[in-house]
Amino acid sequence: MKRKPLSIAAALAVATSALLAGAPSFAADEPIQAIEPAKISDPAKVQLGKKLWFDPRLSRSGFISCNSCHNLSMGGSDNVAASVGDRWQKGGINSPTVLNAVFNIAQFWDGRAKDLADQAGGPIENPIEMNSTHELAVSTLQSIPGYVQEFKSVYKVDKIEIKQVTDAIAAFEATLVTPNARFDKWLKGDKKAITDVELKGYELFKSSGCVACHNGPNVGGNMFMKMGVVEAYKTDHPAEGRSAVTGNEIDRFTFKVPTLRNVELTYPYFHDGAAQTLTEAVDIMGRLQLGKKFTQEENAQIVAFLKTLTGDQPQLTMPILPVSSDKTPRPDPFAPIVAPGKK
Amino acid sequence: MKRKPLSIAAALAVATSALLAGAPSFAADEPIQAIEPAKISDPAKVQLGKKLWFDPRLSRSGFISCNSCHNLSMGGSDNVAASVGDRWQKGGINSPTVLNAVFNIAQFWDGRAKDLADQAGGPIENPIEMNSTHELAVSTLQSIPGYVQEFKSVYKVDKIEIKQVTDAIAAFEATLVTPNARFDKWLKGDKKAITDVELKGYELFKSSGCVACHNGPNVGGNMFMKMGVVEAYKTDHPAEGRSAVTGNEIDRFTFKVPTLRNVELTYPYFHDGAAQTLTEAVDIMGRLQLGKKFTQEENAQIVAFLKTLTGDQPQLTMPILPVSSDKTPRPDPFAPIVAPGKK
Repeated sequence: MKRKPLSIAAALAVATSALLAGAPSFAADEPIQAIEPAKISDPAKVQLGKKLWFDPRLSRSGFISCNSCHNLSMGGSDNVAASVGDRWQKGGINSPTVLNAVFNIAQFWDGRAKDLADQAGGPIENPIEMNSTHELAVSTLQSIPGYVQEFKSVYKVDKIEIKQVTDAIAAFEATLVTPNARFDKWLKGDKKAITDVELKGYELFKSSGCVACHNGPNVGGNMFMKMGVVEAYKTDHPAEGRSAVTGNEIDRFTFKVPTLRNVELTYPYFHDGAAQTLTEAVDIMGRLQLGKKFTQEENAQIVAFLKTLTGDQPQLTMPILPVSSDKTPRPDPFAPIVAPGKK
Repeated sequence: MKRKPLSIAAALAVATSALLAGAPSFAADEPIQAIEPAKISDPAKVQLGKKLWFDPRLSRSGFISCNSCHNLSMGGSDNVAASVGDRWQKGGINSPTVLNAVFNIAQFWDGRAKDLADQAGGPIENPIEMNSTHELAVSTLQSIPGYVQEFKSVYKVDKIEIKQVTDAIAAFEATLVTPNARFDKWLKGDKKAITDVELKGYELFKSSGCVACHNGPNVGGNMFMKMGVVEAYKTDHPAEGRSAVTGNEIDRFTFKVPTLRNVELTYPYFHDGAAQTLTEAVDIMGRLQLGKKFTQEENAQIVAFLKTLTGDQPQLTMPILPVSSDKTPRPDPFAPIVAPGKK
């Protein structure tokens, strides 16, 4: 199979023009922008979404919640190459972090969901993830008086619908941003916020071309790019990338460029989770995407820079979930699956 | 197999004399005592214990933490009859709540652990739970600089040992108490804190003999009792109870009396999780332990009383876990188990 390399120069041109059009006033000459704390316009909706986020009753087993694979104590990911799904099924792709996902151009590695709400419905009914159905999830919520009351209060409805469930989860997720990274402080003018080594790493990150794809407020997340531009990426992982969405052969092995914010926390790396360390990831990316073999010193400098992208992690009070009623379906994680979830 | 019923009157006498000896001054004539907020003497140790509590790296898979089965968003339990363990193995017994467990006479349903620290080491190395070993868990923690620093700060050690791990977890668990239940307010003199129906339920709870076993600050947790005193409990669950600990046949099917605090939140009920609702649990307990068939009204009154035992749930900020280093073992939930955890 022949793969046509995409032009890095073209991607860089696009990124640069985007910057010129929409960059904030500070550090306007840098291809990465600082992010700001989330502005919460509807706190009741966010609180409801937080409960849903942590509620394993959205899964068939009653054991898996959104937080199981996007653990907010662990950089919004699960730090394993493939996530554990219903009945310990192996996840199809390395769980991307939910942190700052609101800034992404689309959701999932292949961008098949246009936004956070569109994404949130997926895992609930994915047979290898939560393996429920939207019907079962909604009827469970509808049987829980505390949820009925909150949905009524937030959405003015008596009958809960999946679109409100995903909307509330998305509203919560939109608050999961990580401002005040040391690099952001540097961008805002605090030149002491990063060390000389870290600054050298950033200069290398720019001059080597990493920034062609990893740019913008999320240092990624704003375009799709082929994995293996200069040299093919070798993996036995079955994910085919964006071609599964577009149907275009040219999109085969093209993935949404992952954010590098908090990348120190979100090991292992790549869609197959094959790179265990940042050192390994930087080395592979350099060779495969840029045709560049970083020296050990250069690699260490870039890794040092990447660690300046760790921002303030969300400080969350764990929600107390509304108690089930006697009518709430009682999940049994070990029951035979009689009505499997649909794709 | 003949089972010798224990004397309820004898148990009540023991409970009463214990009360006369050590009861607080308020409500000294009641067999249940209010609980108070936790006093935290070593906040750094509690914070370390909280991190360990939420850290799935204590499990072989990297997916299961203490909180997976003792979910602090759900009454400190998991609301399923049998918990999900490593590789989706079925747990041996219904997860008891961790809330107020510090008040229990011993830990586990069969009381095989003398205290919280003694308990905390169990699930880590239980092959059907977290399926790690103490050695692996400790070497994982030792590879994480953030943990090394915290253990050094709290325990003045460079080399982490399992006894410090379980000590810190226990220190955190000891803070998980739920004061200010409406019933506690009533005990302290606020006679409006519970309704007439709830009070009737409490009177029935006492006059029927429930209180013989469910008494003290934890409304249980302070003695062992046979399950099925008057009438045998029918179950195909294999747990044999305290005889597994003592080796005495007389202890067969004897379990630690579970706390009834927050019982509204900790469904399903009994060591086998067979009772789905409080109504069902009260009915079965009445018949099997007391030889009493509660009317529907009586049952509802007792259930109403039990719901007054729900206290303030712990308000916890989710910890941000110390990041793994490049040397930290990378868990793979789907790898064949080459060195199975030991019992």
